[in-house]
Amino acid sequence: MTLQEKLQQLGSTWPDAANASGDVAPMQETQLQAEPFDTAIESGIGQLTRPFGTAPVEPAEGMRRLAALQRQVVSANRFGIPAVAHEECLTGFTAWKATVYPTSIAWAATFNPTLVREMAAAIGRDLASVGIHQGLSPVLDVVRDYRWGRVEETLGEDPYLVGELAAAYVQGLQSQGVVATLKHFAGYSASRGARNHAPVSIGPRELADVTLVPFEKAVVKAGARSVMNSYTELDGVPSAVDRDLLTTLLRETWGFTGTVVSDYWSIPFVATMHRTASGNVDAGEQTLRAGIDVELPHTLGYTAELIDAVADSGELIDRAVHRVLAQKAELGLLDEGWLPSDPEGPIDLDSPGNRHIARQMAEQSLVLLSNTRSGLPLRHAPTRIAVVGPGADDPGCFFGCYSFPNHVMPNHPDLGIGVVAPTILDAVRSEFPGSQVRHAGGVGITGGSAEGISEAVSLAEWAEFTVLVVGDRSGMFGHGTSGEGCDALDLTLPGLQQEFAQSVLAAAGERTALIVLSGRPYAIGGHSANAMAAVQAFFPGEEAGGAIAGVLSGRVNPSGRLPVQIPGAASSQPGTYLAPPLALRSEGVSNLDPTPAFAFGHGLGYSEFRTAVESTSSVLPSVDGSLDVTVRVTNAGDRDGATVVQLYLSDPVATVTRPVRQLIGFARVELAARESANAVFTVHADLTSFTGRDLRRRIEPGAIVLTVADNALEPGIELDVEVVGPVRHVDHNRVMTAPVVITKSSL
Amino acid sequence: MTLQEKLQQLGSTWPDAANASGDVAPMQETQLQAEPFDTAIESGIGQLTRPFGTAPVEPAEGMRRLAALQRQVVSANRFGIPAVAHEECLTGFTAWKATVYPTSIAWAATFNPTLVREMAAAIGRDLASVGIHQGLSPVLDVVRDYRWGRVEETLGEDPYLVGELAAAYVQGLQSQGVVATLKHFAGYSASRGARNHAPVSIGPRELADVTLVPFEKAVVKAGARSVMNSYTELDGVPSAVDRDLLTTLLRETWGFTGTVVSDYWSIPFVATMHRTASGNVDAGEQTLRAGIDVELPHTLGYTAELIDAVADSGELIDRAVHRVLAQKAELGLLDEGWLPSDPEGPIDLDSPGNRHIARQMAEQSLVLLSNTRSGLPLRHAPTRIAVVGPGADDPGCFFGCYSFPNHVMPNHPDLGIGVVAPTILDAVRSEFPGSQVRHAGGVGITGGSAEGISEAVSLAEWAEFTVLVVGDRSGMFGHGTSGEGCDALDLTLPGLQQEFAQSVLAAAGERTALIVLSGRPYAIGGHSANAMAAVQAFFPGEEAGGAIAGVLSGRVNPSGRLPVQIPGAASSQPGTYLAPPLALRSEGVSNLDPTPAFAFGHGLGYSEFRTAVESTSSVLPSVDGSLDVTVRVTNAGDRDGATVVQLYLSDPVATVTRPVRQLIGFARVELAARESANAVFTVHADLTSFTGRDLRRRIEPGAIVLTVADNALEPGIELDVEVVGPVRHVDHNRVMTAPVVITKSSL
Repeated sequence: MTLQEKLQQLGSTWPDAANASGDVAPMQETQLQAEPFDTAIESGIGQLTRPFGTAPVEPAEGMRRLAALQRQVVSANRFGIPAVAHEECLTGFTAWKATVYPTSIAWAATFNPTLVREMAAAIGRDLASVGIHQGLSPVLDVVRDYRWGRVEETLGEDPYLVGELAAAYVQGLQSQGVVATLKHFAGYSASRGARNHAPVSIGPRELADVTLVPFEKAVVKAGARSVMNSYTELDGVPSAVDRDLLTTLLRETWGFTGTVVSDYWSIPFVATMHRTASGNVDAGEQTLRAGIDVELPHTLGYTAELIDAVADSGELIDRAVHRVLAQKAELGLLDEGWLPSDPEGPIDLDSPGNRHIARQMAEQSLVLLSNTRSGLPLRHAPTRIAVVGPGADDPGCFFGCYSFPNHVMPNHPDLGIGVVAPTILDAVRSEFPGSQVRHAGGVGITGGSAEGISEAVSLAEWAEFTVLVVGDRSGMFGHGTSGEGCDALDLTLPGLQQEFAQSVLAAAGERTALIVLSGRPYAIGGHSANAMAAVQAFFPGEEAGGAIAGVLSGRVNPSGRLPVQIPGAASSQPGTYLAPPLALRSEGVSNLDPTPAFAFGHGLGYSEFRTAVESTSSVLPSVDGSLDVTVRVTNAGDRDGATVVQLYLSDPVATVTRPVRQLIGFARVELAARESANAVFTVHADLTSFTGRDLRRRIEPGAIVLTVADNALEPGIELDVEVVGPVRHVDHNRVMTAPVVITKSSL
Repeated sequence: MTLQEKLQQLGSTWPDAANASGDVAPMQETQLQAEPFDTAIESGIGQLTRPFGTAPVEPAEGMRRLAALQRQVVSANRFGIPAVAHEECLTGFTAWKATVYPTSIAWAATFNPTLVREMAAAIGRDLASVGIHQGLSPVLDVVRDYRWGRVEETLGEDPYLVGELAAAYVQGLQSQGVVATLKHFAGYSASRGARNHAPVSIGPRELADVTLVPFEKAVVKAGARSVMNSYTELDGVPSAVDRDLLTTLLRETWGFTGTVVSDYWSIPFVATMHRTASGNVDAGEQTLRAGIDVELPHTLGYTAELIDAVADSGELIDRAVHRVLAQKAELGLLDEGWLPSDPEGPIDLDSPGNRHIARQMAEQSLVLLSNTRSGLPLRHAPTRIAVVGPGADDPGCFFGCYSFPNHVMPNHPDLGIGVVAPTILDAVRSEFPGSQVRHAGGVGITGGSAEGISEAVSLAEWAEFTVLVVGDRSGMFGHGTSGEGCDALDLTLPGLQQEFAQSVLAAAGERTALIVLSGRPYAIGGHSANAMAAVQAFFPGEEAGGAIAGVLSGRVNPSGRLPVQIPGAASSQPGTYLAPPLALRSEGVSNLDPTPAFAFGHGLGYSEFRTAVESTSSVLPSVDGSLDVTVRVTNAGDRDGATVVQLYLSDPVATVTRPVRQLIGFARVELAARESANAVFTVHADLTSFTGRDLRRRIEPGAIVLTVADNALEPGIELDVEVVGPVRHVDHNRVMTAPVVITKSSL
C-alpha cells in the first residue's frame, strides 16, 4: 500500500452529512463539510460515519444503502478493503424505528450487569444485522458534577459500578461481533463549572483512582476493542494529544490492542478550541503521535499534507494502519469474498424480544426514594386519578439525548417518534381501567407561564390519587434541559416546575406520588418529604409508562438503586459520594452542607429484606490475599422482590486521604417471598489499593472496615479487618472485581 | 537546651483562650483547650496566641497584660527566651478600637501597591507598638470560585495582581519589624464546591502557574519571614504534611529561610479531619518532617510524646528550633537585656494617620461598574434622597469577617463596635446637608419577610435620587453571608435582596444608584442594567461611608478596578477569567455562558482617558531578553482622576493550553485634568513562562500578543511580538514583575 492508501484507512467520511441536522455534534455548523463521497473514498476509507443515525430511513432501506456505499468503497480501492461502519448506540441503536432503551444512568440504577449484558447483546445483534461494525458506546465517564448535561449518558458516580456495568455492556455488544467504543478517555465529566468541554482540574491520584478505573476494567477484563478520546484537557494537556494516556497507559500498561478513534472533530479542535496546534496538519501530527488511529467523523487532520509535513509520518501512519487493518481483519472485512449484505426482507429493530429487555430494564431502574406511610403500592384502584405535569403525556420525556426520537426526529416532525411508547397518562389509564383519569400539564419543562398550575392543583384536589410528573426533557446543544451541551446552572427543577410541584404537593401531597423523570439528580428532597411517595425515574425508555404504572399498582416491585446521590438543598457542586471526610462534612467548617437528600445506593421496595453478615476471618492474610464475606439476605415479606447487596470499603488511616466509603462489590439478588440467599463476596487485597504519595498504586497494610449497607450513608453491618504484610506496589490491579456467588434457600 | 526545651519553642499557648468566643477558628469547640498558662510555658514557649484579638481590651491595658505574660514566659525558662506574640491583621490589627481598614479584596480593587505598602506599614507600626511580633497576613489564595466565603480575604483572581499586592503588604508590614505570614500555602481557594476545607482537585501545572505564583513572589521578591500551611489537601495529600511543598519548593527552590507555622489546629486535623495520621503524635511527626516549624494556636501535636515516639526526633526538632530561634534573634528577642515594654500612656490604634490611609484605600477601592446616561456624579444636590437597603445604615456591612467588630464584638453587644464608622445614611446626610434624606431597610441581609419592600419602593418613588444598598454582612462560621465558613450556594444576592432590588429598580431605576457592599462578586448584571449607576464596594472599612457619598457627589472620582469578575446570570462556578479558551466560551458546546457581566479589570470613572501604545520592537530578542512597551495615557477630561493601565499577554499557540489573556503588568496612574503620562513597561521573557508538558517551567519561542486594555475582555491595543530563540527552561522566574516607569507631562 502507498502511504496515501494507508492514510486513507485512518480517515472517515460521512455519506449522509448533507442531511445531518439537529446539532448532532458540537460546533457542527463550523465543522461539517459535505465532501463528495466519491472523492473521500478514493484509495479507500477507514470508516463510514452514522449511516443510520443522521436522518430517518427505513431499516431495510438503510441497510440497502449502506451495502451500496460499501460496494463503492470496495471497488474504489485496489485492495478492495471495505470501511468500518459506525453508529451511536447510547440508548440503543440510534436508528429510525429501533428500540429506545433506557438511558445509561438508568442501566446503572438496575445494578444488574447481567441485564446490561443482555441488552447490549440485543443492541449488537441489531447493529450487526444491518451492517454496522462499531458502536460508539459505552460512556465510562465517572460523574463528578450533577450539573453536567451528559450525566444521563453515564453509569453514575462510582467507578466500581461504572466499570462493572461498562464491562458487561462491552461483553454483550462484542458478543455479536460489534466493536464497543469506550468513551471519553479521559476526565471529560469533571469539566469546570460543569460546562461541557471546559478544562478539567485534576491531579494524577484522582485521575488514577476515580477516572481511569472503569476504563482499565473495560479494557483488561472485558477486552474492549476501541477507545475514543475525550474532548477536554486535563491540567492543560488536551486528551487528544496526550501520549501518556493514549499510548503509555492504554497500550503499554493495560495491553490494549484495538483502535483509538477521535471524538467528532476533536483533531481540528486541538487547533481551533485548545490552541495547542497551529492548524489541522499540526493537530493531526500531534494526535497521530499521541495514539489516535482513526479520525472521525470525516478527515480534516489525517490528510495527505501530513505525509510531507511530518518527517517520520511513514512510521506513525504504519503504526496506526496496522491497528486499523487488524481490526478490519478481526471483523472479517478482509476475508476473501467479503461482500456487504442486502436485506432479505423487512427488518424489525424493535422486536418483542428487545421490548421485553427494555421493559425489564425500565422496571429495574425505577428507584423508590420514599414511601411515607407505605402509600405505595396502592391498596385498591383509585376511583379518581389525576396525572399532572409537563412530562406526564410526552414520550419524549422518557428518552435520552442520543435516542433517535430526541436526537434526530425534532427535524422531522411529521414522522412521529418511530416507536410505540405509551406515556405515563396512557399507562395509568391501562393500569387502572376502572378509574376516572384526568390530566393537566400544569407548566412547561422550561419557561412558560404559571397559569396552568391552578388547573393541575384543582385536579389534584379532585383526585383520590395524583401522579405528579416533573423533570427534564432531553436534547442536544441547548435543545433540552439534559443531554450533551445542556448543562444546568443549579440543581433545582427546570423552569417553573419547582413552584408547580410545591403547589400540587401543598394541595394534595399526602395522596400524591412524585415521579421525577430526569437525566440528572435534582434537589427534590423537599418535594419528596411532602409527597406520599417519590420515584426517581432516569429516562426509562420506550417501556417507561407501563413500568411506572406497575410500580404504582404494585404489579412491579421496585428494586432500583441510586447510581448518583439525590442532592440536598444546600449541596454545592461538584460533590459526589466518593470522597474523603472533608468533602462530605461541613459541620464547623462551612455553612454549605453536602449531605444528600438520598444517598448513593439508596432505593426502597415493597418487600422487607433482612441482612446478616459473616466473614471467614478478621484478617486479610496478605497484601496479595483475599477473604470471603458472606451476606445472608432474606426476603421476610410476602411479595417476591429484589434487593441489591452493597459492600463498601473504608480505610480509617492511610498515607493519602481516602474516601469515607467506597463501593467494592454488589449483587442484585432476586428473592421470592420468604426466600433466603447467601451471597459470598471474595474480597481480594487489590480492591483496597490506591495511588500513594509517590504516584504508585499500593496495597497498604493496616486496619480496614468492610461494611454491608443499604446505601453509602446507612450504618450497615461493619467488619473490622486487618490487612497483613508489607506495602505491595502494583502497576495495575489483577483483581478488579469482588466475585460473588449466590446460593438460595427457602425459609 | 534539652530536647524538651527545644520542643517548647515549637509550641504555642493561648493565654486568653477561656474568653475566646464567636467561632474564631474552625472546629473551635472541639479543639480549644484552656490549658493552664503556667504549665504551658514551663521550659519556654514558642508563641503567644492572639493577645488582643480574643476579647476586647483597651489597647494600653492589653499591652500591659502582654508584657506581664512575657515576663512570666521569660522567667519560666532557664534561657529567658520570650515568646513571639502573633495576631490577626487581615483588615487591620484585629484589636479593640483599632482601625478597621477595607478588606483585602478591596485593597486589590485599588490596583495600588504603594498604598497597600503604606497601609501595611501603619498596621505593622500599631502591632509593634503594643508588643506583637507576627501578623497572620496576607492571604495569597488566588480566587478560583466566587462562592467560597473567604473570597473577601483574598487579593482577587489574578496571580500577578495578588503577588504584587501581597509583596507590597509584606514589605510594608515587615518594614516595622513585624513578621508577615503568607497564607494559605497552598491551594485552599479551590476547595470542591467552594465548601470551606473541602478537598482540592488540581494538577501540577495549574498549581504551579496559578496557585504558587504569588507565594513565590512574596518569598523571593519581598522576603516574607513566615508561611502558614493551608487546611486543605491537594489531590489527596494534606498541605500540612506535604514535604514537596513546605520544604522542597519553599526552602530548597525558593530559598525561604523563615518559619512555617501551622494554621490553627491543622496539625491535629491531619488525624481527625484528613485521617492520614493515626493521632496527634503521628500527625505531629508528619508535619514536623514535612516542614511545619511552629504549632498554632496551642500545642497538641508538638508534645513531649513526640520525642520518644520518633526515632530521629532530635534531628527534626533541631531543624525547626533553629529556624524559630533565628527568627527570635532577628526580632531582637534574644538580645541581652530584652524586656517587654509597658505602655507609657494611652494608645491610639485608630490615629488620624490611619484613618487617612483607610479613607484613601476606601475611595480608591470603589468600582464604578456602570453609569448609564452619566447620571453620576450628581449634577446638583437632590432635594429628596432615599437611602434604602439592609446595609444602608449598618457599619457592620463595611467590615470583613476578621475585623474586630464583626469577629469578636457580636459577643459583647454592650460595647458597640469600638471605632467611628459613619454609615452610608450618615454619610449621605453629611454630603448633602441641604437635602431631605429618608431611609428604609426594606429587607434583611438574609431571610426575613418581604413586607418592608413596599415602604422602600414608596421612598424611592418619593425621592429625586435613591441610593440602593444591597450585599453581604460578613461574619464567621455561619454568622454572615461572607467570610470564613460562610460559603454561598450560588451567586444571587442573599436572602430577599434579589426581589428587593428588582422592586426598587422597577419603581425608580433611572434615578437610583446601586451600591453593592459585598465580600464576593454577585450576579448583579441585571440590576446594574436597570440602575442609573452601579458601584461595587468590597467591604471598604470604617471610612466607607464618606468614600461612597463622595463618589455620588463627585467629590471622589472613582478609580477602582475589578480584581474579580462580576459574573453573568448563567455563569456556573468555578470560573474565573484566567483560563484557556474552552473555559471562557460556550457557544456551540454548552448552554451555560461563562461571559461575565463585568470583566476582570473593569472600572469606570468621571474622567475620559485616552491611550496610545508603542513598543521598542516587535521582537522579544531572546528567551532571556526583554522589550519595552510604552503606554501614553492622557486625561482628556476636566477632572483630576486616576486610571489603571493594564498589560495582558496572550500566547496564540503553545504546547499546553494557555489563558486567553493573562495580566503581566499594571500601573495606576493619577493624572490631573489634561495631564499625560508615559508608562514604560519592561516586559521580560520570564513573564511569558509557563509549566510545560514535562512539568518544567519554560519560555517558549514564537508569537505572543501583548494587549493594553481597560479590562480583560475589552479589545484594547494589540502588539504582535515574536519571541526568538530556543526553548529555555528555568527553575523559577528571576523576573516576576514588569517594572513600570511613569513620566508625566501636561498638555
